[in-house]
Amino acid sequence: MKQVFNFNAGPAALPKEVLQKAQAELLNYQDSGLSVMELSHRSKQYESIQNHATERLRTLMNIPDDYDILYMQGGASLQFSAVPMNFLKEGKTANYCLTGSWSEKALKEAKKVGSTHIASSSKEANYSHIPESLELSDNPAYLHITSNNTIFGTQWRTTPDLPAKVPLIADMSSDILSRSIPVDDYSLIYAGAQKNLGPSGVTVVIVKKELLERCPDNLPTMLNYQTYAKNSSLYNTPPTFSIYMLSLVLDWVADQGGVEQIEAINTEKANLLYHVIDSSDNFYKGPARNDSRSNMNVTFTLPSEMLTKKFLQQASESGFVGLSGHRLIGGCRASIYNAVPLAHCEKLAQFMKDFHTNFM
Amino acid sequence: MKQVFNFNAGPAALPKEVLQKAQAELLNYQDSGLSVMELSHRSKQYESIQNHATERLRTLMNIPDDYDILYMQGGASLQFSAVPMNFLKEGKTANYCLTGSWSEKALKEAKKVGSTHIASSSKEANYSHIPESLELSDNPAYLHITSNNTIFGTQWRTTPDLPAKVPLIADMSSDILSRSIPVDDYSLIYAGAQKNLGPSGVTVVIVKKELLERCPDNLPTMLNYQTYAKNSSLYNTPPTFSIYMLSLVLDWVADQGGVEQIEAINTEKANLLYHVIDSSDNFYKGPARNDSRSNMNVTFTLPSEMLTKKFLQQASESGFVGLSGHRLIGGCRASIYNAVPLAHCEKLAQFMKDFHTNFM
Repeated sequence: MKQVFNFNAGPAALPKEVLQKAQAELLNYQDSGLSVMELSHRSKQYESIQNHATERLRTLMNIPDDYDILYMQGGASLQFSAVPMNFLKEGKTANYCLTGSWSEKALKEAKKVGSTHIASSSKEANYSHIPESLELSDNPAYLHITSNNTIFGTQWRTTPDLPAKVPLIADMSSDILSRSIPVDDYSLIYAGAQKNLGPSGVTVVIVKKELLERCPDNLPTMLNYQTYAKNSSLYNTPPTFSIYMLSLVLDWVADQGGVEQIEAINTEKANLLYHVIDSSDNFYKGPARNDSRSNMNVTFTLPSEMLTKKFLQQASESGFVGLSGHRLIGGCRASIYNAVPLAHCEKLAQFMKDFHTNFM
Repeated sequence: MKQVFNFNAGPAALPKEVLQKAQAELLNYQDSGLSVMELSHRSKQYESIQNHATERLRTLMNIPDDYDILYMQGGASLQFSAVPMNFLKEGKTANYCLTGSWSEKALKEAKKVGSTHIASSSKEANYSHIPESLELSDNPAYLHITSNNTIFGTQWRTTPDLPAKVPLIADMSSDILSRSIPVDDYSLIYAGAQKNLGPSGVTVVIVKKELLERCPDNLPTMLNYQTYAKNSSLYNTPPTFSIYMLSLVLDWVADQGGVEQIEAINTEKANLLYHVIDSSDNFYKGPARNDSRSNMNVTFTLPSEMLTKKFLQQASESGFVGLSGHRLIGGCRASIYNAVPLAHCEKLAQFMKDFHTNFM
């Protein structure tokens, strides 16, 4: 089998052990004679898969009991609409911190629903950093942040300081489970699975129960968070196989020693690459400001378009996958989510050093 | 490996050959060194999977070129909302044929959006048949039908006769690809995959392009059919693995000889079971009227609750899975979608006959 080093931005690398387990039982889940994909979502077997995922996630992220864990579909993009439809009432204003394309998209959907306010933005600085301060509107419905920005390679290092009554809502699609976070600072966290949690097709929502009281009755049923909370995410058929894969990934995280251990490795992985960039005498440049650098997406440019192209081509020939920057900004990007092994980051660091040396 | 006979109502049986292929290449798709789940949705490899599915479906169902094929998430339940949000304009009335719980749910979501009208209903007859005639409202936005009713076991045998300008919209979640249908009689067809098309997590939408001109601009982006049509269903990350499984299932249908051949086998499977019911001297009774019987979900009752329980228990001990009727109406139900082999239906027919004989 071809040896490749997968730095895709999402869908992204999955732990090899997880894929092996899924493969082994693909036609015969726990001696049932059935594939997980063939189980009824109302069967005890499936129920226990989903419950297992929920319990695992609660333990790993230290999620308090007054939070529900929901499984939805449609990715973060559907959450961009669901959040304001559920929580942006007449007379209130939805507050957004703009830190990149994803927060812009979230804001765009909120504008269709009601009054909005940009609490902070680094757009003028080409989204090179996380804004230091923010200014809330009157009567804020909530503050929305994107905790990690895959395209520009920036990440919130701390939770923004907010008045107690203002719910903090975060799109954590690209850094959930990659580091310890204080869940009770947030009223709602959502994340598409395809970066740190599993394959695409399932969106995890972690929501404070008291917030759910605000969901209006007249929403489309499938966009109302209450529908999922009241029915254990089984109002209709959930994406059962994606949730099964999520449960395996969560087991794997536990096997690695939990989120703290994962965080330590992630920091080591990111430091490796940032060190190459910082000691390259400006051959590699990181567009993200040092204090805002992401531990998940390491973005960098080379001195010219031609060199970038050459770098990407040689990298591809050497087995590196997914190193092109996002089509919006170009350049290069290494996405180093939980399942990307340290060894692969070492390989990439060496490749970057060698490429630089050969150029000199 | 335990031998089981899977009659689940959905998620349901998948062809064994499909599962075997998915298993074989789960860690190494076409010698890429990656799992399909690890491919970027912007990669050439994934693009060709999705394009292959689209072309296969177009050929198998004979879908004209002026129809788009879209991949969405959220199942039929999200379509219940998407349809009226996209196509029920002020001054128009959405028309629904009520043939069971699923059409009731579809109607309920449309009521949240605008004016509705029940064009026909067999509710008074406990949904035992498909209504013979229908009466449209003034200014109909569209007529919505549920082509097959999994709970009651009924199925539309013909397309309802409509004035040329009234779009016909059908939820075909439970019988798509099970029989030849004239796609151009419909303006929009939608189907959750988990019965005849693949695993849960992807919803196929087949829509006439000219209908898309009616989609309003201010909808949530992920509920606007235009978003999917304009971006080849790649506006955001699609459920890539589910679409891959769909592509394998479509290949399998082609290998079986296409939809006409599948339809012939499905008819044979259904006839086998209905014959046992009809020749059981009322021991087994089918609640569905003969002219409305479904070829996908064969529902039946036994003379008493106790016998039903005994039947289900003995069936379970003999390896039959999923024969309980829907929790709304009880009794028994054999779901015999495309992937359920004729041999499994023969086993079940024999089991039913034996159970009856032993009782006498």
